[in-house]
Amino acid sequence: MNAQPILKPYVIGLDLGGTNSVFGIVDSRGDIKATTAIKTQSYQNVEDYVNASIDALQIIIDQVGGIDKIKAMGIGAPNANYYSGCIEKAPNLVWGKGIVPLAKMFSDRLGIPVAMTNDANAAAIGEMTYGVARGMKNFIVITLGTGVGSGIVINGQLVYGSDGMAGELGHVTMVRGKEGRLCGCGRTGCLEAYCSATGVARTAREILSKSEEPSLLRELNPEEITSLDVSIAAGKGDKIANEIFEFTGKMLGEACCDFAAFCSPEAFIFFGGLVKAGDLIMNPIKNAYNAHVQNIFKGKAQFLISGLDGASAAVLGASAIGWDIQ
Amino acid sequence: MNAQPILKPYVIGLDLGGTNSVFGIVDSRGDIKATTAIKTQSYQNVEDYVNASIDALQIIIDQVGGIDKIKAMGIGAPNANYYSGCIEKAPNLVWGKGIVPLAKMFSDRLGIPVAMTNDANAAAIGEMTYGVARGMKNFIVITLGTGVGSGIVINGQLVYGSDGMAGELGHVTMVRGKEGRLCGCGRTGCLEAYCSATGVARTAREILSKSEEPSLLRELNPEEITSLDVSIAAGKGDKIANEIFEFTGKMLGEACCDFAAFCSPEAFIFFGGLVKAGDLIMNPIKNAYNAHVQNIFKGKAQFLISGLDGASAAVLGASAIGWDIQ
Repeated sequence: MNAQPILKPYVIGLDLGGTNSVFGIVDSRGDIKATTAIKTQSYQNVEDYVNASIDALQIIIDQVGGIDKIKAMGIGAPNANYYSGCIEKAPNLVWGKGIVPLAKMFSDRLGIPVAMTNDANAAAIGEMTYGVARGMKNFIVITLGTGVGSGIVINGQLVYGSDGMAGELGHVTMVRGKEGRLCGCGRTGCLEAYCSATGVARTAREILSKSEEPSLLRELNPEEITSLDVSIAAGKGDKIANEIFEFTGKMLGEACCDFAAFCSPEAFIFFGGLVKAGDLIMNPIKNAYNAHVQNIFKGKAQFLISGLDGASAAVLGASAIGWDIQ
Repeated sequence: MNAQPILKPYVIGLDLGGTNSVFGIVDSRGDIKATTAIKTQSYQNVEDYVNASIDALQIIIDQVGGIDKIKAMGIGAPNANYYSGCIEKAPNLVWGKGIVPLAKMFSDRLGIPVAMTNDANAAAIGEMTYGVARGMKNFIVITLGTGVGSGIVINGQLVYGSDGMAGELGHVTMVRGKEGRLCGCGRTGCLEAYCSATGVARTAREILSKSEEPSLLRELNPEEITSLDVSIAAGKGDKIANEIFEFTGKMLGEACCDFAAFCSPEAFIFFGGLVKAGDLIMNPIKNAYNAHVQNIFKGKAQFLISGLDGASAAVLGASAIGWDIQ
């Protein structure tokens, strides 16, 4: 007996960001066969956005042999509800401030199943499908970017919660009361307020202003310091830069202790610009975790860096949702 | 066609506590048909404990028609690992300080399947089987007793994590740094250090010592104040007692905000002595939650009190694990 040929060997992934919408056609091994993009915000309403998307997509669909070769489409998007397939009140999307049934709109136009979730959940499915979480049943992906996001997998299933919106670990409270930093969500003390790109930049300014210690970072405009700048300085042994990573890693490591109390994952997987610093940030995370975690969890969880290629990771993650549709 | 008769209509539940071990034989509606108990700590080794258990059980097994009527046994016990069926390093059990394969020992003696988990996980399965969580797929049970425990259900499955030990929400950190109260786990600032029975008593002493406000609680020995005392005083409008519940409820409500960020449950279900105070404690929990939770989760979760009868709840919870064995 021969194995059945895979009649539909590809899925479409859409990484829908505030600025760009990047499309990729991906095979089951995570190879991107064709890619295209449009500007997300060039369209005032969602109908125009979908029309432009379909026009762009049609070209790459034809390149891989037509829509019959494609099993499904997955979308990673802000404020995406997996259950309803809607974008719900996305503050950063011109056409996404209401309830937008984007999955159904694409499905109607393409004639294939379409599912949608937020970018961090997409990253988690991506790691499970193509990345370092292959074979794992219990793990947490933490995305460190403009915000801090998370995708949680328990018993081999992504956690969507009762409403499709679960996995907002960037918004657990790390500093309670008045000392907590204001977060983009309007509350104070969230993990995101400390460990997002802007959080790290703020930590840099605070630490620089509190000491006279010489630092390469003092050569930069304090308002424009990025985690890449901190990373480069830390790599050169800059004391202040390493202090910034110590502070950031302590927040992340201690947050992971609470996450372990919740679901005792076999791995925490970090994704995003910050972890390009490698051990400079991963060691402070691990050290804070080991110093603080409950005895019963000590030494059990791995701390890993995403196995997905940075440039195409978001598209790969989105595409993986397509394979996941039953 | 007639429905198949239920050939094995009962399960055995064992609530294994530090002092007493209570056994019950339970039907599928949660009616306890027979019950017995032994002293947990009267036995120096686990073989003697199991022998005494079997002797006591045999009498009630005979009462319901013999072992052929019994499908399985569930055990709720401290430091129980669901995957291995072992009690692991239980500090409060004379014969449980090593790794004790208790599920297998009972299974070998009774000839039926036996599964074991901790008491809070048992409570969660109990609520899903017989209590207020019937029909729910995503909820968290928080047990407030000598300690603070939790059982988490996601997608209709109890969360055991990668090692069988997940769901330790009593040990998320609520107060970071040096101000955190010392917890029984050896760390500081845990939810349990504030919301367990001893935590509430400590809060009572702290609040009483900080003010001159008259209070019924001043008539008691400060070292012996219980949550029941606080509850009685609060019910009479005692200002200090209500302040104690406000403080405790704020801790629990704010902790639930972080839990919502994790898995967005449809309900938080509270179990234990403290919630006998009803609205006096539940309202502060709900108010703190509503004031602090992320906008996307506002108004979604219910706050419920356990639907299991207090006296037999632990045995019912343990028995429910028996129905859950595949």
